[in-house]
Amino acid sequence: MKALAVRPGVTNSGEMIELAPPDSAEGAILVRGLAIGICGTDVEIMEGAYGQAPADDERLILGHESLGEVIEAAAGTGFSPGQLVVGVVRRPDPEPCDHCAIGEWDMCRSVHFRECGIKEQHGYAREMYRLDPQFAVAVDPRLGELGVLLEPASVVAKACMLAVHFLKRTDVRAKTALVTGAGPIGLLAALATRYYGLETHVVDVVDSGPKPDLVRDLGAHYHAGSAADLDISPEIVIECTGIGSVLRVAGAKAGPGGVVALTGISAVPATEEVNLSLFNKKMVLENKVLFGSVNAARTHYEAAARVLSEADPAWLGRLISRRVPADHWPEALERQTDDVKVVLDINPRARAA
Amino acid sequence: MKALAVRPGVTNSGEMIELAPPDSAEGAILVRGLAIGICGTDVEIMEGAYGQAPADDERLILGHESLGEVIEAAAGTGFSPGQLVVGVVRRPDPEPCDHCAIGEWDMCRSVHFRECGIKEQHGYAREMYRLDPQFAVAVDPRLGELGVLLEPASVVAKACMLAVHFLKRTDVRAKTALVTGAGPIGLLAALATRYYGLETHVVDVVDSGPKPDLVRDLGAHYHAGSAADLDISPEIVIECTGIGSVLRVAGAKAGPGGVVALTGISAVPATEEVNLSLFNKKMVLENKVLFGSVNAARTHYEAAARVLSEADPAWLGRLISRRVPADHWPEALERQTDDVKVVLDINPRARAA
Repeated sequence: MKALAVRPGVTNSGEMIELAPPDSAEGAILVRGLAIGICGTDVEIMEGAYGQAPADDERLILGHESLGEVIEAAAGTGFSPGQLVVGVVRRPDPEPCDHCAIGEWDMCRSVHFRECGIKEQHGYAREMYRLDPQFAVAVDPRLGELGVLLEPASVVAKACMLAVHFLKRTDVRAKTALVTGAGPIGLLAALATRYYGLETHVVDVVDSGPKPDLVRDLGAHYHAGSAADLDISPEIVIECTGIGSVLRVAGAKAGPGGVVALTGISAVPATEEVNLSLFNKKMVLENKVLFGSVNAARTHYEAAARVLSEADPAWLGRLISRRVPADHWPEALERQTDDVKVVLDINPRARAA
Repeated sequence: MKALAVRPGVTNSGEMIELAPPDSAEGAILVRGLAIGICGTDVEIMEGAYGQAPADDERLILGHESLGEVIEAAAGTGFSPGQLVVGVVRRPDPEPCDHCAIGEWDMCRSVHFRECGIKEQHGYAREMYRLDPQFAVAVDPRLGELGVLLEPASVVAKACMLAVHFLKRTDVRAKTALVTGAGPIGLLAALATRYYGLETHVVDVVDSGPKPDLVRDLGAHYHAGSAADLDISPEIVIECTGIGSVLRVAGAKAGPGGVVALTGISAVPATEEVNLSLFNKKMVLENKVLFGSVNAARTHYEAAARVLSEADPAWLGRLISRRVPADHWPEALERQTDDVKVVLDINPRARAA
């Protein structure tokens, strides 16, 4: 069977390799790979700037945003052939920390967690793989191939669930959300804040392409430019760019009592400096909360599955702006104007209806 | 009657002035001032660097950390003569924001809140004042003159209650707390984290004077120097210095998933710069929470009253390192070696037993 692999640390080392079918010891559920979503992390890994192969391998199989179809499932797994399934990305430290021991793999306090397709664990960009049921999340069959959006949606669900928990430190209900960056994470964040009933404003630099309409079609407001110019006072900010200068403006816009979720990491050279004592003073006097959120646990995949199930499938479909057959995989990793989410079709003949 | 007043913005303008007794319109509870705790904010106001007089006055009566004795209380106030009472510092915006409208004055989203003895509202450094019952907190009579510690303890209670709420985003119970700075706020924070059953480490620069023993006598660990040298992995950090370089080290020590409470503002010139994009990356990858906390609402005063009531009165008594009679007030504002909390005795003859 075929798999898309890289040699971590080596620039442009990606190649489609031939592998033996997965060993049954790898998990009680046998899955046929259908699709892989491509994100910035994949591009970084392909550039040799990120990623780590499993200890017993020189290569890392790519792909963390997945969608597959169950081929075989042992009794008691809760899965059956034909079901759509997404594999969890973050896996526990083999010597589990307090968080890993209770399924909060996303909160691992050690550096020994693993991430499929990213860190010390092979990913899902292959024709077949096996999943342990604890790492398999069932996808609503009505979502079909849109299920490939579940992993990025789980990242957003975690950040939103944390933000909502933090907002509950007061009895005042939040009304307004600001989302910075209208990439897939920002757009899914806007979907989530609309799902929570918040007036939602999305800021990005572009004023053309699909993003403005995707935002407006959620009943949210799109702004091309800087958040500094907006006359809003959001209680919640979801920062999706990871760019220091964007964070500085967005954090200030949150205003007193604001909760700022940090979800992005940027490859843009970091030049924005802040004076930490003055930053501290503003945080204190304005009762501000700033928190980072990475990855997701099962509970966040399940929350994301609910949000996606209630979303307009046509809107979700527009997030997938390009589909690339597996044989043409380099095209999936090349950024094109108006890309939102690019999906690699692993096994097109078997694609869900 | 006498009151200690300043002309905000004018350096060393403090003077003991003569005032008419308070008008009954000012509140249904008449209080005899007993004691005022002095903090860094009072020193800043005296230096002309902070503070704002009420709109109809050139002068601001100083004093926000208070203790008084009820002289008269109208029926229905819930107070009676002889009771010890502390006045709430933060008062709502006269045109209340959503938070002020429900008693969350500490979370006011406008800039029009008032603070007794600090901002647009006279303080408690006077022989008599009146309180509206909603701004009066009863003090356990067994605390006696230690009740003057209630206001700083309320600031700590708020930060700790927020930190505990934020920690509840996971099901893993926190075990270890780090407190940076062993001034009154840091020592009361250590008292609170011990009250919550946490292994507690306190870092300060001094290695002599009363602080090390005050920390150790709580069953906590005292460290002179930098938090960078400690071999601990605290889930909660309470930063009480407001100094950028201390915050940087303490924030890093918190480690993945850590919650960092910012409670201090420093007058030390701020020189510590951080790169905001790299700071963001660390926050994201480590699921970190950073939050500012200022002032307190009634609910925090009430929580603080519980913590103080269960504390060893002898230990609390050692926090008050100097008492200065009202006539010698300038001495109270001069920093001396080994000062912890300095208290101004407003009405020594009437002091609680």
